[in-house]
Amino acid sequence: MAQFNPVDHPHRRYNPLTGQWVLVSPHRAKRPWQGAQESVPPQTLPTHDPDCYLCPGNTRVTGDKNPDYTGTYVFTNDFAALMPDTPQAPQSHDPLMLAQSARGTSRVICFSPDHSKTLPELSQASLEAVVSAWQTQTAELGLTYPWVQVFENKGAAMGCSNPHPHGQVWANSFLPNEAACEDEKQRDYFIQQGSPMLVDYVQRELANGSRTVVETGHWLAVVPYWAAWPFETLLLPKTQVLRLPELSDAQRADLALALKKLTSRYDNLFRCSFPYSMGWHGAPFNGEENTHWQLHAHFYPPLLRSATVRKFMVGYELLAETQRDLTPEQAAEKLRAVSDIHFRESGE
Amino acid sequence: MAQFNPVDHPHRRYNPLTGQWVLVSPHRAKRPWQGAQESVPPQTLPTHDPDCYLCPGNTRVTGDKNPDYTGTYVFTNDFAALMPDTPQAPQSHDPLMLAQSARGTSRVICFSPDHSKTLPELSQASLEAVVSAWQTQTAELGLTYPWVQVFENKGAAMGCSNPHPHGQVWANSFLPNEAACEDEKQRDYFIQQGSPMLVDYVQRELANGSRTVVETGHWLAVVPYWAAWPFETLLLPKTQVLRLPELSDAQRADLALALKKLTSRYDNLFRCSFPYSMGWHGAPFNGEENTHWQLHAHFYPPLLRSATVRKFMVGYELLAETQRDLTPEQAAEKLRAVSDIHFRESGE
Ligand SMILES: O=P(O)(O)O[C@H]1O[C@H](CO)[C@@H](O)[C@H](O)[C@H]1O
Ligand SMILES: O=P(O)(O)O[C@H]1O[C@H](CO)[C@@H](O)[C@H](O)[C@H]1O
Repeated sequence: MAQFNPVDHPHRRYNPLTGQWVLVSPHRAKRPWQGAQESVPPQTLPTHDPDCYLCPGNTRVTGDKNPDYTGTYVFTNDFAALMPDTPQAPQSHDPLMLAQSARGTSRVICFSPDHSKTLPELSQASLEAVVSAWQTQTAELGLTYPWVQVFENKGAAMGCSNPHPHGQVWANSFLPNEAACEDEKQRDYFIQQGSPMLVDYVQRELANGSRTVVETGHWLAVVPYWAAWPFETLLLPKTQVLRLPELSDAQRADLALALKKLTSRYDNLFRCSFPYSMGWHGAPFNGEENTHWQLHAHFYPPLLRSATVRKFMVGYELLAETQRDLTPEQAAEKLRAVSDIHFRESGE
Repeated sequence: MAQFNPVDHPHRRYNPLTGQWVLVSPHRAKRPWQGAQESVPPQTLPTHDPDCYLCPGNTRVTGDKNPDYTGTYVFTNDFAALMPDTPQAPQSHDPLMLAQSARGTSRVICFSPDHSKTLPELSQASLEAVVSAWQTQTAELGLTYPWVQVFENKGAAMGCSNPHPHGQVWANSFLPNEAACEDEKQRDYFIQQGSPMLVDYVQRELANGSRTVVETGHWLAVVPYWAAWPFETLLLPKTQVLRLPELSDAQRADLALALKKLTSRYDNLFRCSFPYSMGWHGAPFNGEENTHWQLHAHFYPPLLRSATVRKFMVGYELLAETQRDLTPEQAAEKLRAVSDIHFRESGE
């Protein structure tokens, strides 16, 4: 019998943050694709779009007018999924019909007044302003809510309804599933190993290198060993930081650089504005010490083969287990093979 | 303060099969949609397409020729995600880099020789043949593998690359995440309550009725109390059955009817070929008694507002918690409001 080899043989890898396995079927990348093609958005957008409800000075559906903002701009989502004043739901006792009321808020963070620029095309100063906005929002909402979810949906393929560069922040009166799960798994690891899981993981990846995509002075982006999406990455500070507001000035400035390099590599991979959902996980605001936590960002990009062919997480994935078509090491290699200077800036 | 009311107030519901919560934000359905639109497939397809690799008599990419089949037709996937002879992977000891080898097989099940017909348009006899094929495949592969996942990806929106009516069956040498989780949750419930979870659940829903979509002599389809996708349904036999092959002849014939009614309601909702991923979960083939198990099918359809506007499970959903924009009771009401006779058959 042949010897096992992860590039040719289907195998499962374990995600220690979620406790879920991922099926890796690297030979599947060879199959022809006759399914849906994504549409590629126009390569050039105007710097100001009179029909965009996020551009400075424009009026939103609600009739509110955006100020003539010049940096970042934050406002409460006009169709927020959560509200601060939801009444308490009656206690439910049926184990098959359990409900609880949910409070919170949703805000929109415009990254820049310039309608045409996404993260990789912003200047270092503008990217630092985005990081600052994430920090301020997290600190402010963390005073009231145990969980503050900062995220960005980028591209129509990821349900984004407006190309104007923006992200969101949803604050929750509860720990959502993913937060509760990562909290538990990191705590268990800390109890067993005596060190924080993701601080240990950074050391492993710095020593190994095969999954590294971007390394800066303070940050490391890797395709994690257990990645689900084809070009998923995990962005980590090299030393322990509990939450975004607790970054040092040097870590904040260097994060702007790491973001620029990572998102430029993404755009360069298929020479398109690379869609993704990304977001930050940090220690909950629950009054505990949280020494088991390490701040990190997940990037979940859907594309698989080209600017128009995505990975579908469907039948087998929804009903049984996430399945991927190339190894995390192969994905990291492809992302390392392209430049970290954006194709529009390098003029190549 | 107002009284809590699930139609106006955001709340979370608990899924006892997965242990995950779902955020329900019913007021969100009011927001305008400016995002991606799905393309609607052509309403009429030929009964035989010379370019289709699933039609009878045609040649596949591998050079294999399909027989002139007249009923269902099963063959091993030309690009299977799993192989029966993967060598054993070396034992891994690093808790951050755990892997195991995975064995199995993937087969394609053509539902009918007629390229133009999907499940709701098949005759009762053809639908019974589809159920029989699911039963035979499950029984046969269950002799070798602990888990046999029968599923169908329907429509380009669900990653289906060919409109010819077909499903798949993937057999696994391991219990995939969802199977392991449902097994554990059903076992825990059985230990605590002394009866199988989903057998109890059927009784609750039969008594309640507000989430019922289709009821036949032996089967019940509901939008479950904890549904994640807008028009998700759970299809259950009314009495305990462990696995597909163990259905009685009467239950099998009646399942064909329940499938026809459920998928016709789906197509009628937005007058289109309604995309979904569906699949069966039954007791694992692990040599145990499995009295805690109840056979069931999950239908996960992506559409939200119309034939072209889907629900995106993206940023907040991937990073925090699944969120839905209408209550399960509202979804069930919409599905009950349309006919259970397919719009092409009723000529309406
Ligand atoms: O049916 P296919 O073409 O093999 O593939 C489809 O279903 C598979 C199983 O759910 C997924 O892994 C693929 O992403 C999807 O495109
Ligand atoms: O950004 P929007 O338009 O509020 O909405 C988008 O992100 C939300 C949070 O991930 C999702 O629930 C929606 O399905 C998606 O379309």
